[in-house]
Amino acid sequence: MSLIVFGTIALDNIKTPSGVRKNLLGGSASHFAMSARLFTKVRLASVIGEDFPSRHLRFFKQKGIDIDPVERMQGKSFAWHGEYKDSDFNTAITLATELGVLADYRPSLPDSHKNIKNVFLANFDPDNQERFLSLMKSPDFVGMDTMNLWINNNKNSVKRLMRKVNIFVVNDGEARALAEEMNLIKAAKKLRKMGPQFVVIKKGEHGVLFYCDEFMFSFPAYPIEKVVDPTGAGDTFAGGLMGCISMARKINERLLRKAVVYASCMASFNVEGFGISKTAALTLQEVDERKSYFLNFMRAY
Amino acid sequence: MSLIVFGTIALDNIKTPSGVRKNLLGGSASHFAMSARLFTKVRLASVIGEDFPSRHLRFFKQKGIDIDPVERMQGKSFAWHGEYKDSDFNTAITLATELGVLADYRPSLPDSHKNIKNVFLANFDPDNQERFLSLMKSPDFVGMDTMNLWINNNKNSVKRLMRKVNIFVVNDGEARALAEEMNLIKAAKKLRKMGPQFVVIKKGEHGVLFYCDEFMFSFPAYPIEKVVDPTGAGDTFAGGLMGCISMARKINERLLRKAVVYASCMASFNVEGFGISKTAALTLQEVDERKSYFLNFMRAY
Repeated sequence: MSLIVFGTIALDNIKTPSGVRKNLLGGSASHFAMSARLFTKVRLASVIGEDFPSRHLRFFKQKGIDIDPVERMQGKSFAWHGEYKDSDFNTAITLATELGVLADYRPSLPDSHKNIKNVFLANFDPDNQERFLSLMKSPDFVGMDTMNLWINNNKNSVKRLMRKVNIFVVNDGEARALAEEMNLIKAAKKLRKMGPQFVVIKKGEHGVLFYCDEFMFSFPAYPIEKVVDPTGAGDTFAGGLMGCISMARKINERLLRKAVVYASCMASFNVEGFGISKTAALTLQEVDERKSYFLNFMRAY
Repeated sequence: MSLIVFGTIALDNIKTPSGVRKNLLGGSASHFAMSARLFTKVRLASVIGEDFPSRHLRFFKQKGIDIDPVERMQGKSFAWHGEYKDSDFNTAITLATELGVLADYRPSLPDSHKNIKNVFLANFDPDNQERFLSLMKSPDFVGMDTMNLWINNNKNSVKRLMRKVNIFVVNDGEARALAEEMNLIKAAKKLRKMGPQFVVIKKGEHGVLFYCDEFMFSFPAYPIEKVVDPTGAGDTFAGGLMGCISMARKINERLLRKAVVYASCMASFNVEGFGISKTAALTLQEVDERKSYFLNFMRAY
C-alpha cells in the first residue's frame, strides 16, 4: 500500500546551541517522507521555486522518494529561518519566514497519483490541505497535522478539514489551543469529537498520548541526551506512524501501538542531527535496534 | 519491614478551580504516610503546634499510622496557604507560609524508633532532614525529597544529604535546577553522581523518569481528567514508592519498576480530591484495580 504526503518543501536556516546550518532540505513533507520511506513507498506532493537546489531533488530520488508530484513554480522557494535558544528545544523562535512560491500556490496532482489509498496532509495552509485532499479519488486512510499559526488564524478551515480525516496528529500546545482545554485527556476527547477517529498528541520530550473511543495509551519519548536540532521531529514522527500504518492490512489497537512506538523512535533519530541528516542515513535495521531498547525502556515490569 | 517518614505536618488552606478548603490535614509527611500505609507499617516523625486539631491526630491513628514520634511544641502549627489558577496544576502559588513551630524545631526520636530500617526524609529543611537521619541507628534504605526553596537557599545542605541517601525523589524543575542541566536524562545522571544510587524524577502529568547506572526507564502518568487538588501528589508518589520497596526482600529492577507503577497510581488518586481525602479512603484493592488499567494503558503492544 503506498502513501502520499502533501506538505511543504523548505530551505531551512537553523541556529541551535550545536551550530548554524544554511539552506538545509526542510519542510513538513520532506521530513515526513524521509521517515516514512523506511516503511513503505512514499510519494511527495509539494511546490518549489526556481532557486531550489537540484542536489536536494536528486537526494529525494536517491532515497527512493517519488517526487513526480512536486511542482516547480516561478519565484523563490519557501524558506524558514529559526533558532532554538539555551537548550529550550520545545520552542522554535521563527526569525523569518519567506513564503516565496507558497504565497499563490494551489495544489495539483498528476492523474497517476490520484488513486493512492493512504494520504497524509503534513503541516500546510489548511485550505490547501483540503484542496489537495479533494484531488484524491477515494482514499482509505487520511491523516493530518497542523500548527498554531493555522489554529490561530484559520481555525474554521482546520476544523472543516478535521471532519475529513481519520487520524489527527498535533502537538500538546496546539491540542490545548484548538480544544480550548488545558487537561490533555479532555482535550484529546474534544478533538476526537471534532471529527478524526484517532487523535495523537505529541508532547516532545514527554512522549505521546493516543486517543480513540475504544482505547487510549501514552508512551514516554525515547531518551535522547544530545538534542542537536528538533526541527521536523513532529513530521518525522508522523512519517513513521503513517508509514507503519500504510504497510498493515488491518488497523487495530496492536498496529496503532506499534506504529506509535516506531514513530517515537523515528522522531528520536531526527533530533540527533541537523535537518534530515540523521533520518536520511537510517536503515530499518537501525530503527529496529532502537525499538528494542525503547520497548525495554518503557515496559512496566 | 517497617518504614519511618520524617517531614512536615501542616494545616493547608487551598484554593483551586474546584473550590476552597481550610485547615486541611497536609504536609509532606502526612501525604507520604497516608499513601505508604497501604503497603507497610508506617511511623511518622514530625512536629505540630498547640493549636493542632486532635481530630487530625485521631485520623492518623484510625488509618494505622504510628504518630508516637510526633512532637507537640508551644506555638502555632505550620500552615500553608496556596492556590492553583486557571487549571495550571503544575504551579502552586504560595499565598502565605506560616512556619510556626517549624522555625526553631530540632528533630528528636524515641529510642524505640531508632532501629527502623527504611527511612524517608520527606520535604523539609535539609539540615533537619540530616539531623533526623543521624538519629537513626543503622538504616538499610534511605530516601529523600526536597524542593526549590532549599535548592535555591540551602544547596550545600541538600548536596551533603544526597551523599547519604539511596534514592532521591525530585520533580523535573528541581532536578534541572539542582543539576544545572536542561536535558532531563543528563540531569538525572548528574544527580546520580551527586550521591544517590537511584534517581526518580517526577514530571507531574508527564509521568516519571527513573535512573540508575544499570538501567533507566520512563513511564507516563496515569491519565486523570478531573484534577481537583495536586497538593501532596509528589509526597503521595514517594509514599507508594517507599511503601512498595519496604515490603520487598530484595531491591532489583523488577521491584523498582513495580514500585514506580504503584507510586504513579497513588499520586493519581491524590490529585482527584482535596488534601488527603482520596488516598485516606483507599484500599489496596482499589489501587490494584487502577494498576491493572494503568499497565494496559502504558504497554507497548
